Amino acid sequence: MPRPSCRPQIVEAAVSEFHRLGYHGCSVDTITKAAGVPKGSFYNHFSGKDELAAEVVGLYQSRSAFREYEPAGDESPLTELRGRFRAVAERHRDRDFARGCLLANLGAELGGSVPRVRDAVDEAWRGWTARVADLVTRAVAAGELPGGVRPEAYARFLLDAFEGAVTRAKVERSMTPLDDFFDHAFGLVSAGGTRA
Amino acid sequence: MPRPSCRPQIVEAAVSEFHRLGYHGCSVDTITKAAGVPKGSFYNHFSGKDELAAEVVGLYQSRSAFREYEPAGDESPLTELRGRFRAVAERHRDRDFARGCLLANLGAELGGSVPRVRDAVDEAWRGWTARVADLVTRAVAAGELPGGVRPEAYARFLLDAFEGAVTRAKVERSMTPLDDFFDHAFGLVSAGGTRA
Repeated sequence: MPRPSCRPQIVEAAVSEFHRLGYHGCSVDTITKAAGVPKGSFYNHFSGKDELAAEVVGLYQSRSAFREYEPAGDESPLTELRGRFRAVAERHRDRDFARGCLLANLGAELGGSVPRVRDAVDEAWRGWTARVADLVTRAVAAGELPGGVRPEAYARFLLDAFEGAVTRAKVERSMTPLDDFFDHAFGLVSAGGTRA
Repeated sequence: MPRPSCRPQIVEAAVSEFHRLGYHGCSVDTITKAAGVPKGSFYNHFSGKDELAAEVVGLYQSRSAFREYEPAGDESPLTELRGRFRAVAERHRDRDFARGCLLANLGAELGGSVPRVRDAVDEAWRGWTARVADLVTRAVAAGELPGGVRPEAYARFLLDAFEGAVTRAKVERSMTPLDDFFDHAFGLVSAGGTRA
């Protein structure tokens, strides 16, 4: 009977360690120790830390509170959009804001210096943007947002503003930046914001 | 005659290396090599990497394009505010967006895990927020923004949204996130954004 693979333990430990310590702040040794597996087993499953981190980014995003939020049956698109962002904010609050968003952390720490991780963060943000843009499109159709809103551009703006607020919340250990986001981000109806 | 101190070279090299590589991505050895000084000289001047990074954060902020921007004599407060953010965006573009903002990078990478650096980032962001809030206050007085705008909260929102866009620009190597910021961030007139 084959031995069970250590792979799942390594991935789960890495989700937590990369989130807590950053990319360069933890090593393969840190991760295998946290996983309780022999360091040597790592390279049976991954070519390097970058491959693991890229997989972790995808997993992190697939479990986001934004995606897991379940809207009430009668929620309007804009209420649902706020509710999804609010669910993410509450998850950050439950962690005392200490970890921030793994995507923003790795994006800010690494940029393009580790291409595989960059590509994973980029893809995760694009997917999240598409989900926001879909709700914006539905909110425009429902008359909750002005007809001139460009869903994709506004979705990008919302997401970037949210991620900036999460990073500041991480530094301040405070909900205030996220409150600022909810108080301001959905109120944009300017000529600039709604240009064709 | 005393030997000239290596301190200024160390600080200047550190501005560049922390910005390029992050906090855990560079070591005292990396920095002293980049400075062209003996590694041993480092501890004559700094108790550790955290003390140096905190000083670098303050220096980085003091040289920001936001502060160095010179408004035309007849610029309105809101035009000046946009112009200052635009100057920062252009400096990022001049670096092909590769470095991002040192404050957001260190804030996202470290949070509170290195308290001295956290405090420096927090202080730099508070100072920047105060400069934005001052221009928002003047824009409200000039009738360029609605009277219900809360300058401090809106300034925080603007700055966090900008920093989020800079981080995404770093990942995408593109001006698009910053264009999204300028297209949307100044259009707040909602009940939420202008509540008393």
